[in-house]
Amino acid sequence: MKWWGWGEPRKTYPLDHRPGFWPFLISKIGAPSGGPAPRANLDQIRIPTPRIPARALEALAATVGAEHLSLSHNVRIAHACGRGYQDLVRLRRGEVPRPPDAVVFPSSEEAVVRLLRIAGSEGLAVIPFGGGTSVVGGVEASDGDRPVLCVDLQGMNRLVSADPAGLVATAEAGILGPALEASLGAHGLTLGHFPQSFEFSTLGGWIATRSAGYASTGYGKIEAMVIALRVVTPRGTIATRIVPASASGPDLNALLAGSEGTLGIISQATLRVHLLPAKRDYRAWLFRGFPDGLSAVRAMLQEGPVPTTVRLSDAPETEAYLAMRERRPGWPLRAQEWAGVRVIRARGFAPGRMCLAIIGVEGSAVATSQAWGGLRRVLGRYGAFPLGSGPAGAWYRERFELPYLRDELLDAGIMVDTLETAAPWDRLLPLHARVAGALRDALTPSGASPLVLCHLSHAYPTGASLYFTFMARQAPGREMEQWQAAKRVATDAIMAGGGTLSHHHGIGTVHQAWMHEEHGKDGLQTIRAIKTALDPDGIMNPGKLVP
Amino acid sequence: MKWWGWGEPRKTYPLDHRPGFWPFLISKIGAPSGGPAPRANLDQIRIPTPRIPARALEALAATVGAEHLSLSHNVRIAHACGRGYQDLVRLRRGEVPRPPDAVVFPSSEEAVVRLLRIAGSEGLAVIPFGGGTSVVGGVEASDGDRPVLCVDLQGMNRLVSADPAGLVATAEAGILGPALEASLGAHGLTLGHFPQSFEFSTLGGWIATRSAGYASTGYGKIEAMVIALRVVTPRGTIATRIVPASASGPDLNALLAGSEGTLGIISQATLRVHLLPAKRDYRAWLFRGFPDGLSAVRAMLQEGPVPTTVRLSDAPETEAYLAMRERRPGWPLRAQEWAGVRVIRARGFAPGRMCLAIIGVEGSAVATSQAWGGLRRVLGRYGAFPLGSGPAGAWYRERFELPYLRDELLDAGIMVDTLETAAPWDRLLPLHARVAGALRDALTPSGASPLVLCHLSHAYPTGASLYFTFMARQAPGREMEQWQAAKRVATDAIMAGGGTLSHHHGIGTVHQAWMHEEHGKDGLQTIRAIKTALDPDGIMNPGKLVP
Repeated sequence: MKWWGWGEPRKTYPLDHRPGFWPFLISKIGAPSGGPAPRANLDQIRIPTPRIPARALEALAATVGAEHLSLSHNVRIAHACGRGYQDLVRLRRGEVPRPPDAVVFPSSEEAVVRLLRIAGSEGLAVIPFGGGTSVVGGVEASDGDRPVLCVDLQGMNRLVSADPAGLVATAEAGILGPALEASLGAHGLTLGHFPQSFEFSTLGGWIATRSAGYASTGYGKIEAMVIALRVVTPRGTIATRIVPASASGPDLNALLAGSEGTLGIISQATLRVHLLPAKRDYRAWLFRGFPDGLSAVRAMLQEGPVPTTVRLSDAPETEAYLAMRERRPGWPLRAQEWAGVRVIRARGFAPGRMCLAIIGVEGSAVATSQAWGGLRRVLGRYGAFPLGSGPAGAWYRERFELPYLRDELLDAGIMVDTLETAAPWDRLLPLHARVAGALRDALTPSGASPLVLCHLSHAYPTGASLYFTFMARQAPGREMEQWQAAKRVATDAIMAGGGTLSHHHGIGTVHQAWMHEEHGKDGLQTIRAIKTALDPDGIMNPGKLVP
Repeated sequence: MKWWGWGEPRKTYPLDHRPGFWPFLISKIGAPSGGPAPRANLDQIRIPTPRIPARALEALAATVGAEHLSLSHNVRIAHACGRGYQDLVRLRRGEVPRPPDAVVFPSSEEAVVRLLRIAGSEGLAVIPFGGGTSVVGGVEASDGDRPVLCVDLQGMNRLVSADPAGLVATAEAGILGPALEASLGAHGLTLGHFPQSFEFSTLGGWIATRSAGYASTGYGKIEAMVIALRVVTPRGTIATRIVPASASGPDLNALLAGSEGTLGIISQATLRVHLLPAKRDYRAWLFRGFPDGLSAVRAMLQEGPVPTTVRLSDAPETEAYLAMRERRPGWPLRAQEWAGVRVIRARGFAPGRMCLAIIGVEGSAVATSQAWGGLRRVLGRYGAFPLGSGPAGAWYRERFELPYLRDELLDAGIMVDTLETAAPWDRLLPLHARVAGALRDALTPSGASPLVLCHLSHAYPTGASLYFTFMARQAPGREMEQWQAAKRVATDAIMAGGGTLSHHHGIGTVHQAWMHEEHGKDGLQTIRAIKTALDPDGIMNPGKLVP
């Protein structure tokens, strides 16, 4: 991963065939004034000298092998923080105030057990590190006197077992998304978990943060897929039983999922998997307005058939998507498009009000065809207009690419970030208006004319999540303050509107200030007590999750 | 509820039209020798004098009103234990060694808060009491010096809100199954939770024990229906947020569900509900053997359509069910039956091997008809023979009646009990053989020829639960030892075979000895630590769940 941004170093977001991209964006947020400061030079970034005592280093090296222990400048910077907007702003400036003092790469659970023992006896803080894609400060060291040991799980990346008959598979926690899907695919299986960070995030990271992917409406969030876990804590290793359901007291899997490295290190997970779908059938639809779209999605989730993927953009996001989309040259496509626009307008779909939905169904050919039969009836009831598989295919091809665009926007001096929540159906429309309004209000005074987009990204019978994207010209020299102000008012609006503090990004440090409101005094006290019980000396990812 | 048995005092299990019942049973287990000792007389049962100090009694009465505080002999006995076999044996003998010292009936969460405060300051142990149907010792006081206060939630029985559009409803924890379904039904809704104790158990009890009902394959276990909880603990009231999903740290709902009153008192729950199904279409099928049936159920759960209810009896249970079933007089039915038997035998269905399945689908007329289309294809693949809706209707009508039969069998000197587990698909057949064999081995030496029956009772894509019924002549004077021996070897077999200690009965005291094996040292330590955090003085249901 780029040390200053997202993904493969040479890869960029393709804007060549998007003639409307910059004109639309500038028409909305204005032309950035001069662009950002130039990016720092990696070699010239000054970071603190490693603080780990020699005796501890010896013990660490003896545990993982000297070649799997690194104090190097570049490795420490690569493990210094996640990949949120606030991380990228500071990395580009060359601000890396708290890199880990050392990074180790264990290759077995036994090594992890020994590492935690060393950390305990040597007074080190431990930060578990999967892919490092946290957008909430989940892998960045907090202030503190303790030397920080980053435990990078990338060496624990095996598929341990897969049972296509029982639809159960076990894998080590450090496996990356593509490797996991490839090894499951060899058995004809899929996990069905595709967060936007898929290519660079790990199974353990997904579970530690209660991640969701674009197909979670059908396959479920990651915590719903967990059958059993192995988690190394400072007090011992918890191994939950591999059974489909139980009434043997509280569900420890649900306690460990979402623990964000503050209780221990997830070393292995046993998961519910699915047969690889023979068909992935994604199609785009247009609604006359966001309320119609929400009602249709609610009907699908409550009455069925339940789509694998559902993503409903609000009117501003639809407008942006259509204006900024890829347009390959050639008049036949143009002609079709013009004809389509006339048909759509004649039917009462108005720019500025209409909303685009991407709906995907995965499964056997028969099952997907049946599901589409049912979905068409529901969509028809709410006046949706079919745009076919073309726009859906374009979205599908680029579903992991958007983080690359963020780098381009940052290069141009444009702030872009996302935030998300979930709420019951009856609160979604007011919550949508409240959060979008709060973001616009917060960003306008900073001199920027913001662009605030939203889509429903995962749906449940009892509610759905909303995913907001906001863009504005950066306030030069005040980038962090500008972002913090937007983040604060949006999160206040989420809490006041009855949403959850986070649906799938997690808490880290960025959301901590609202944990009291989310869980109440006694709920928060409970989470703290669990932490104290499993990590009495507070060595596990200190400063995260619980304030 | 009968003080010595199950359900309504005047109600018995109807054996009049079951000419084969006693002959079959006696042919299998032998004629009971003389029957049991006569039942004790309620008035003559000696119980200890209440130990609650006068000051505490005054405070309790001031909190709930004197009319909602009882020290009466009969009320204390009615709250002394659950309704497991071991409870009934002792009740019939008049053995009530540890009744609660007092019973209170609060009618609000505020009252519960005050009750826990009084208990804390006065050194009382608190036992939350829903319907009192625990079969694992969950509501019986443990040994200890502390006076015991039973908190009966039956006064907290309101449906607080119901949203048919959002499929969310909130109810107080003390509401009984029929009242909850009736009040939801008035909004066109159902929870879809029908444990065998349905008529006499409460919402809070279901959640505290992670209950399942006959329709849980479709509607899910109770913990899967919980959206939010309000739980009064000695440290404060935890109120989880009403949202469809979250990534804000560990899921506290999953920590409180299954806590069996050891962390606090569930006062209210917000639940995912369903539209009342227009149709409940239950049908019986016959398989040539248990393995075929298991494969068919696995295919339904993995490929769909997923039935609402699936219940697959093994060969002994099928034989018993057919021999002991209702037979109304009249030759046309007889003739049909004989013709049916000939057809079935000709197709290779052999008594002693064939297995009966009850499969139910609930939903709209269109949805149930479509589901049956898909289910028939799956059933056909595994050679199932349709018996139609007649036998399924008979099962459905009597689905809550079997506990009444237990009383009749006890009257006749026959032990009957059930136990259950769940395991991944690949372990189910060996586990079935292992547990059934262990039960037969354990019961044969006690002079009885046991009858051991089993059915798959709830299914998941990754496994299923097995529900065992065992009957034998009671060993007079040694009833408890006989039962304990059977329970012990069966549970050992479950654990050795990779099942879970309990799929839906819970832990209480009866399963405690295996909690170490179920959760491991560190898992158990975690559950203990949570208990200490929320209930530092150990006043909540002491002696339950965690050994």
